[in-house]
Amino acid sequence: MTIINNTKPKEEVKLTNEELMHWYIEHIELFLSDYIKDDDKDTKRLSEAMRYSLLAGGKRIRPVLALDFYKIASGGLDCSHRVMSYAMAVELIHTYSLIHDDLPCMDDDDLRRGLPTNHTVFGEATALLAGDALLTEAFTLLADTATGRPHESEATVKAITYLSKCAGYRGMCGGQELDLKFETAVEPPSEETILKMYGKKTSDLLSAACAIGCIAAKRYDLVDEAAAFGKNLGLAFQITDDILDVVGDEQKLGKPIGSDEENDKYTYLKAVGIEKAKEMAAFYLEEAKRSIARFNNNEFLYWLCDKILERDH
Amino acid sequence: MTIINNTKPKEEVKLTNEELMHWYIEHIELFLSDYIKDDDKDTKRLSEAMRYSLLAGGKRIRPVLALDFYKIASGGLDCSHRVMSYAMAVELIHTYSLIHDDLPCMDDDDLRRGLPTNHTVFGEATALLAGDALLTEAFTLLADTATGRPHESEATVKAITYLSKCAGYRGMCGGQELDLKFETAVEPPSEETILKMYGKKTSDLLSAACAIGCIAAKRYDLVDEAAAFGKNLGLAFQITDDILDVVGDEQKLGKPIGSDEENDKYTYLKAVGIEKAKEMAAFYLEEAKRSIARFNNNEFLYWLCDKILERDH
Repeated sequence: MTIINNTKPKEEVKLTNEELMHWYIEHIELFLSDYIKDDDKDTKRLSEAMRYSLLAGGKRIRPVLALDFYKIASGGLDCSHRVMSYAMAVELIHTYSLIHDDLPCMDDDDLRRGLPTNHTVFGEATALLAGDALLTEAFTLLADTATGRPHESEATVKAITYLSKCAGYRGMCGGQELDLKFETAVEPPSEETILKMYGKKTSDLLSAACAIGCIAAKRYDLVDEAAAFGKNLGLAFQITDDILDVVGDEQKLGKPIGSDEENDKYTYLKAVGIEKAKEMAAFYLEEAKRSIARFNNNEFLYWLCDKILERDH
Repeated sequence: MTIINNTKPKEEVKLTNEELMHWYIEHIELFLSDYIKDDDKDTKRLSEAMRYSLLAGGKRIRPVLALDFYKIASGGLDCSHRVMSYAMAVELIHTYSLIHDDLPCMDDDDLRRGLPTNHTVFGEATALLAGDALLTEAFTLLADTATGRPHESEATVKAITYLSKCAGYRGMCGGQELDLKFETAVEPPSEETILKMYGKKTSDLLSAACAIGCIAAKRYDLVDEAAAFGKNLGLAFQITDDILDVVGDEQKLGKPIGSDEENDKYTYLKAVGIEKAKEMAAFYLEEAKRSIARFNNNEFLYWLCDKILERDH
């Protein structure tokens, strides 16, 4: 496949799902390899901390979703800087949330994807700032999609509105707060409340990733269905994560086995048992597929859904 | 003065500087009193933590600057929701930075403006999230200035670009990192490096406040001068803060006297001595005034500059 180095192939080549995934990942890593550099010796440690977590691997599922929804909505592959910026803004938010989530006052994790967590390497204070700065940079990146292109401003503003709401106190941050509440709860939370927490903590940002691809393509009419896909995928993803935490092994996950169990965390799995958890993970995947049933060229997303249940990292 | 309850007086009344300050503060507090409410019992503790710090007093100097630069740039007083949103976005960023700055891994302060700090009341994890959520909400608030008003999108995007850059890793967060670096420095930092830290940590957000007022008024031609005012004011402000830390008293400042000294922090005062520090604070104030010398109706800002050197809280 020689197509990888072009940002917008003139002739559409029919790629397999694996090739398309490879194309997306390649462009994502290429974008990141040259991103957030600060030569100022006085402050460059902060940018190094930001880059450390940005480049510490990960499945890149959020930018992949954004890029594929852009492709579906616009009818063509495009990994130009403008389109990549929409997709990567979501990855910046995701990365900041992992750094802050790993801090001693939150989950206090030493390992993330098999590597030392940000604060383990750079110290708590710099890790805190790296998270803050990545969150801030997500909006710089989005706003820059309209720099020198005033006609792009409306789409840019819609993307910022969508992403900031999904990431804020009614979205992802609210989900983190609810998760904290579970830790001190006397009564185990209901199934419904656990799903609500997953919805905010995980699904909202996945919804934003899907929606933002449509917004970048200015297909605002597709945003609701794309977001519904992300919402359901998030629930399937999170329930699967609970299951993997119990049945997986440390090497595959890159984090200590049973860490949720040790922390006495309430999970959906714990509330309903493994059989129902597997059943509901499959149910939400089907719901996700149904959300985008009317979209053309949805094969890649269908394929990605199926990968979720068999993911090993 | 009956003018206070109107958002846009039809007949311009000549207000004194004190009355104008009162008008701004009144509208700022009014805006905040009804802002960030979450009735969801599962997550409302987060919004309470956000409100706690937003409503914990403070001089509101950043939104006041934004509102006055809007007034100068547009030629009229306006405290409509749109203009207030620009101004308050800067205050949200300022408030988040204080919450994170007070955390145990940063300055570990128990008191802020005479009240227990956010993490003292809500715990470290919720305080961390409250900061994250306030930072995120600043961009929701800005983006909403163009919701249903696509013709406003260009100004909105410019404001988001400006604010996010000033708050990010090359701006305020970079200043915090530099401040951290001082703590472990073997050699005392140079005068120049201390001023660079103040410039990033304090001036950049003040510059953004001034610039954003001009952007809200779509007077992009005034942004550079407004930002230069903010930059110089920030340096004067920070040097004055060093001086107050030594000569002030605990009750007036609402924080333990000599806290910078105890932490062995490097300050400009420590580097140059009190006489030169006073002289340079006055110098930067004069520079600030010079930056806006060609603006009409700059009396309020001149008055505000002079208040800086005599502020007692």
